[in-house]
Amino acid sequence: MTETVVPYVIPANAGTLTYQQAGVDYDRVDPIKRLAQQAARATAAQLAQHGVAEIAQSRGESAYVVDVGPFHLASIVECLGTKILVADAVYRDGGKSLYAAIAQDTIAMAVNDLITVGATPLVVQAYWAAGGSDWFADERRAADLIAGWKAACETCGVSWGGGETPALAGVVEGDTIDLGASCVGIVSPKSRLSLGDELAEGDAIVLLASSGIHANGVSLARKLAERLPEGYRTPMADGTTFGEALLAPTVLYAPVTEALARAGINVHYCVNVTGHGWRKLLRHPGAFTYRVTELPPVPPVLDFIAREAKLDASEAYGTLNMGAGFALFVSAAEAERVVAVAAECGVAAWVAGCVEAGPKRLVIEALDVVWGDDALQLR
Amino acid sequence: MTETVVPYVIPANAGTLTYQQAGVDYDRVDPIKRLAQQAARATAAQLAQHGVAEIAQSRGESAYVVDVGPFHLASIVECLGTKILVADAVYRDGGKSLYAAIAQDTIAMAVNDLITVGATPLVVQAYWAAGGSDWFADERRAADLIAGWKAACETCGVSWGGGETPALAGVVEGDTIDLGASCVGIVSPKSRLSLGDELAEGDAIVLLASSGIHANGVSLARKLAERLPEGYRTPMADGTTFGEALLAPTVLYAPVTEALARAGINVHYCVNVTGHGWRKLLRHPGAFTYRVTELPPVPPVLDFIAREAKLDASEAYGTLNMGAGFALFVSAAEAERVVAVAAECGVAAWVAGCVEAGPKRLVIEALDVVWGDDALQLR
Repeated sequence: MTETVVPYVIPANAGTLTYQQAGVDYDRVDPIKRLAQQAARATAAQLAQHGVAEIAQSRGESAYVVDVGPFHLASIVECLGTKILVADAVYRDGGKSLYAAIAQDTIAMAVNDLITVGATPLVVQAYWAAGGSDWFADERRAADLIAGWKAACETCGVSWGGGETPALAGVVEGDTIDLGASCVGIVSPKSRLSLGDELAEGDAIVLLASSGIHANGVSLARKLAERLPEGYRTPMADGTTFGEALLAPTVLYAPVTEALARAGINVHYCVNVTGHGWRKLLRHPGAFTYRVTELPPVPPVLDFIAREAKLDASEAYGTLNMGAGFALFVSAAEAERVVAVAAECGVAAWVAGCVEAGPKRLVIEALDVVWGDDALQLR
Repeated sequence: MTETVVPYVIPANAGTLTYQQAGVDYDRVDPIKRLAQQAARATAAQLAQHGVAEIAQSRGESAYVVDVGPFHLASIVECLGTKILVADAVYRDGGKSLYAAIAQDTIAMAVNDLITVGATPLVVQAYWAAGGSDWFADERRAADLIAGWKAACETCGVSWGGGETPALAGVVEGDTIDLGASCVGIVSPKSRLSLGDELAEGDAIVLLASSGIHANGVSLARKLAERLPEGYRTPMADGTTFGEALLAPTVLYAPVTEALARAGINVHYCVNVTGHGWRKLLRHPGAFTYRVTELPPVPPVLDFIAREAKLDASEAYGTLNMGAGFALFVSAAEAERVVAVAAECGVAAWVAGCVEAGPKRLVIEALDVVWGDDALQLR
């Protein structure tokens, strides 16, 4: 899925399809998100009565961590989002059921977040809210969803603990399904905790290959499909269709982080590259300059989207993963070993840059892209 | 909310509104649910590589349990379901924002399940999937949702760890929101595990009061509202409306189970009375006869629904909680202490019956209702 395509730079012009035009308005969501974060923080005091305490630093990170004594407990809930609509469209238009891929995507959304804090994922719970009982009556897609879910759990080494499969007519749109997953894991030994304390200038940035769009930037891709004369049937260079290419399942990175732990490699910080694309590389709260000197190959489907939607480099890399699904920050001396361990897990990786002293910003040299602290506001 | 109303028996007749007519068809969901359960069971072997193991008996129970060494880990994901549509209707029709109550309901769905296995809930994650960014732009309802969520976490003694607030136009219906919660907790000491091993003839059944419909049977209530000339505005005896009465928040039972643990009371088994109403009392896999000799008072809103929908006793108690939101099975000698501890937590409770040797069935004496093993198929 990651054959080499030379990164391109397309200047913005009148035909550009922005993310906001595609129906996702972060400005309207974020103030309430921040209010919720404040309220959430205030509840941490509840843990004292149980003799445990949160790791406050984990708030704002991709998973929440509680120190329960012998180890840390990490937990998360995540959802697939609107990528299900692509699977639905491809299924209706030709009958190709790619619901196994969609299941893997959903688990990836949760597990790839959970592992960023250094946790070993243990249990995944399924949240499958259908628009009506009929969704489950189509045994083919339902069986594919189940098979994909099981396989993804096995890849991640987690037990599928159970879940909830409600039929929610009137809440979820008819003939589709809202897919989510919760995941719980442990950070053990506690020294595996990777909340960024050890991030330092001189560290290397190792990027792990994505398989395609994963599950972020999909609203943009859907809007683009509406514009294309053949929609999701638009042929890609490799003979697949645009719809099928979009549905390449998200890479599961848990085997890599577990293998790194077994190899004794100390990971300083991790970033799951999801919404906001490469701007997520600015996630760590500290003031560092991140310099990217090598770009990973761009998956053809992302190259296609960026060209067709006329995104400039800043828009493309600020929205899509552009070939990098996960970032590991490690000491420079260990960077090549990280690449080797990832390769043993079947995941391509690149030492793509380094962490420098300096104002908080991300510099992508080959693209002339520089983002400052204001490019990502998650906290 | 639980003022005394004499339980009634209304014979079924042509005007009866059944749950299947109300749009929930368990037959179509359950085969796939069982297929998913089989696949899930097969993934348990994954835990061995991490040096931990599932408690296999917890599959089929309300929360999944893993033995992680010093204690057990319990986890769950749950959703509010269609009750949000009642809150939406009441909000649109008069502007009364009851989203704080809805938040409590959502947390109750997860936490009241988690505690059945003997777990102390520690962390709740929020899953709030809106039909569009606009949902969060209405600051009043969003702020109410946040305030209710925070308060419910505090009542349960859990930390609100974070969550996900996506805008999912095309998946979730416009101007509503799909609310879910995941919860993780620990069973500590391990002797608190209450998966039913100790359930025995002679045990007492203690029922804990519900506040109203909670979040199950709501599809039926919504269908009924469509039939009523004044819909959700229909006045109830106490001066509230039908809509407001439906939105009485679900009782949170975690303070009771934690108080019982502190009091040293050994709970043999718990049932969260949700979907399938009192048929859930047949949840334990063993062969016992459950004899109910005392009925709790029926909350007025449930009495109203049963009468207006012309449900006979079997339909009413087999669908709605009818005043009993949670059941505790304890040794007869401790039953009255359980009632006293619950009362100290502000939750009314009754020693409602006992466990007997005999074929698996539930006998509700005052109603002439007898359900056999076939009344509830969850496994």
